[in-house]
Amino acid sequence: MRAEIIAVGTELLIGQVVNTNATFLSEELVGIGYDIYYHSVVGDNSERLKELIGQASQRSELIVLCGGLGPTEDDLTRDVLADYLKEPMVLDPEGYDKIATYMTRSGREMTENNRRQALTIQGGQAIPNDTGLAVGTFYQAETTSYLVLPGPPRELKPMFYHHVIPLLKQQLPQTDQLYSRVLRFFGIGESQLVLELETLIHEQTNPTIAPYAGDTEVRLRLTVKATDETTANEMLDEMEEKIMSQVGDYFYGYGEENSLIKETVKALQAAKRTVASAESLTAGMFMSALGDVTGVSSVFNGGFVTYTNEMKRCLLKIDSALLAQHGAVSEACACAMAEQARLLTKSDYGVALTGVAGPDKSEGQPVGSVWIGLSSATSGTQAYHFQLQRDRQYIRQSAMMRAMDLLRRQVIAENHD
Amino acid sequence: MRAEIIAVGTELLIGQVVNTNATFLSEELVGIGYDIYYHSVVGDNSERLKELIGQASQRSELIVLCGGLGPTEDDLTRDVLADYLKEPMVLDPEGYDKIATYMTRSGREMTENNRRQALTIQGGQAIPNDTGLAVGTFYQAETTSYLVLPGPPRELKPMFYHHVIPLLKQQLPQTDQLYSRVLRFFGIGESQLVLELETLIHEQTNPTIAPYAGDTEVRLRLTVKATDETTANEMLDEMEEKIMSQVGDYFYGYGEENSLIKETVKALQAAKRTVASAESLTAGMFMSALGDVTGVSSVFNGGFVTYTNEMKRCLLKIDSALLAQHGAVSEACACAMAEQARLLTKSDYGVALTGVAGPDKSEGQPVGSVWIGLSSATSGTQAYHFQLQRDRQYIRQSAMMRAMDLLRRQVIAENHD
Repeated sequence: MRAEIIAVGTELLIGQVVNTNATFLSEELVGIGYDIYYHSVVGDNSERLKELIGQASQRSELIVLCGGLGPTEDDLTRDVLADYLKEPMVLDPEGYDKIATYMTRSGREMTENNRRQALTIQGGQAIPNDTGLAVGTFYQAETTSYLVLPGPPRELKPMFYHHVIPLLKQQLPQTDQLYSRVLRFFGIGESQLVLELETLIHEQTNPTIAPYAGDTEVRLRLTVKATDETTANEMLDEMEEKIMSQVGDYFYGYGEENSLIKETVKALQAAKRTVASAESLTAGMFMSALGDVTGVSSVFNGGFVTYTNEMKRCLLKIDSALLAQHGAVSEACACAMAEQARLLTKSDYGVALTGVAGPDKSEGQPVGSVWIGLSSATSGTQAYHFQLQRDRQYIRQSAMMRAMDLLRRQVIAENHD
Repeated sequence: MRAEIIAVGTELLIGQVVNTNATFLSEELVGIGYDIYYHSVVGDNSERLKELIGQASQRSELIVLCGGLGPTEDDLTRDVLADYLKEPMVLDPEGYDKIATYMTRSGREMTENNRRQALTIQGGQAIPNDTGLAVGTFYQAETTSYLVLPGPPRELKPMFYHHVIPLLKQQLPQTDQLYSRVLRFFGIGESQLVLELETLIHEQTNPTIAPYAGDTEVRLRLTVKATDETTANEMLDEMEEKIMSQVGDYFYGYGEENSLIKETVKALQAAKRTVASAESLTAGMFMSALGDVTGVSSVFNGGFVTYTNEMKRCLLKIDSALLAQHGAVSEACACAMAEQARLLTKSDYGVALTGVAGPDKSEGQPVGSVWIGLSSATSGTQAYHFQLQRDRQYIRQSAMMRAMDLLRRQVIAENHD
């Protein structure tokens, strides 16, 4: 089945927004068995959009349109598709109720523009938007199906995972069933992972192995064509075993919506242990990342951001002499911070981050020099040094993720039985 | 002048690589006066690429092709364009010498595939590649020009900056100089802003006004066509004044690379004031956002993450009776947290965030109920309530940004003279 993606929005054409939706949708569509032959981007212009829909309809069985479902008059994707299909637009009652409730709660008047976000196309199926207001649409014409999705990735992604994939799977011929499994790795770069698995990646056709590099991690997507789920799982298990024997040390979890942070929280929950932290370099990013996980309050108490040395003394009671002798970016300071974070909050684990984010050196240490302290109530305190590269933002992010991984490994190691 | 971008590569179509080249090229081309109407992506397939070049040639005066100049047989962009233009390919002697030298230095044999990277199109102009081996091409046909660039951004960008821009500037009429200005707003939604400025946006053609919604803010880009910078600035000033008279309350700063957080840090720096915070709901996100700004250490000391009530008592010394009587998500608790954060860190301002991130209610309060406390050494302590919508991540992010804005306004108001 051929699919193509049309992203709509002048902001894409003038280079203000990167078309990450096309990347996301492609990976997901390929994962369930579509072949993608084209991506297009067109501005908020009815004539050009309609012409492109016409062209795409000649060559693809599925056309995914994303963007242009907002409340302004620029947002015309739905209107243009309805016009092309010669169908009227109709109000989705559930979508409308959601918008009405939202407006009432925000104390605002419902305008005609707000109402437009609940419009779908007659003969089509409304797709609920769990994280936003614009309703999606799935419309099946004779030879081509049309899928209309909102532009913001935070709305498009959950809509795709939870509502679109089940819909599309029904469209695909039963013999072509594809099953896929995502393995997630941290602490190894994409090129290194590909090098280690070179033979497998190149010789393997069923399942196929495709690597995807994220900001601080790598995912491998295994995709297998099989007649049923049991056979598929057996084939995937076998391939996974081969992969694990080579790079299993870096593996941390499964699944597209998973993350190293979620796995860390899961490990703490399974072990019934709590964590606190003291952050200098990352200024709260580690704790904020934990706070993003639903249900984290059972394992996370709180902690300290001690950006200055004065705060390290005053909030964490770190000895002035230690700071004077070793400096803030040091093994000794990372250990003291981690231990104090743990003790002062009565937690089972304490994590500390201190380092040089840049752009300038600090205390004679180079940009990217990072110490991570990890204190455990059962096995004492240790610190780990990393020399990270790139810019301030990446150094902070990468340090936070490394601290998360150290904590996760420690929790699993100590609570194995 | 109309331009469009065609990116070539199967890795883009299966979602392994994000098409950041289109974003980069668009911004640069718009900056020198081109209008971009289309982006396309096509795989390493001659037939589909040739068809797309044909379509694009009907509608654009400049077609930028990027990717598919590598040494493998998949890389066919140059061949397909030569075929479309009915021109033979010719060897660029300088490009060839560079490849030959490189191969000799690496101790490798020169293959036919290596040699192909030095091919350009007869009648066209070779564009040197300062950071790679594949030669670019600029070819002017009667109504359309074709630009062929390598795919890797580290080759494409320097080639564009150093060799392409000078070439293209010669193509453009001198009267078409474009100047733009970005105004940033917080606290008003895109639809509301567009509604307020409806007449201006629709009636205005020079400058044009384009709204861009971010996650928690809106930008307006004013773009003016003028003969020189002075005239452009006068026209932009005049339009800005009209905009400000209607939505100036929400304006916070200028520029594409600016942010509400940077402006808050700037206000603190100008006033020589420091801030600390106590975070429950956001678990460190407010402080981490500050930490992302270079040079923030002069105005930011640190603070507390008090996720549980126990931590509010233990780290912030908040009265158990207060928590029992009012609960953690309350005006009283937000005020106490803000004041304690300020006093315990000896800062000029204290900011507190407490609320219900969801997915479940807490203490009988609905998801999205947020109290932000703001304590000032000079004007006392106050708390502000917000009822936010959407998911956990958005509620936390949005609360953090509102706290940032409250702080920024307070700092500016108190340090005006």
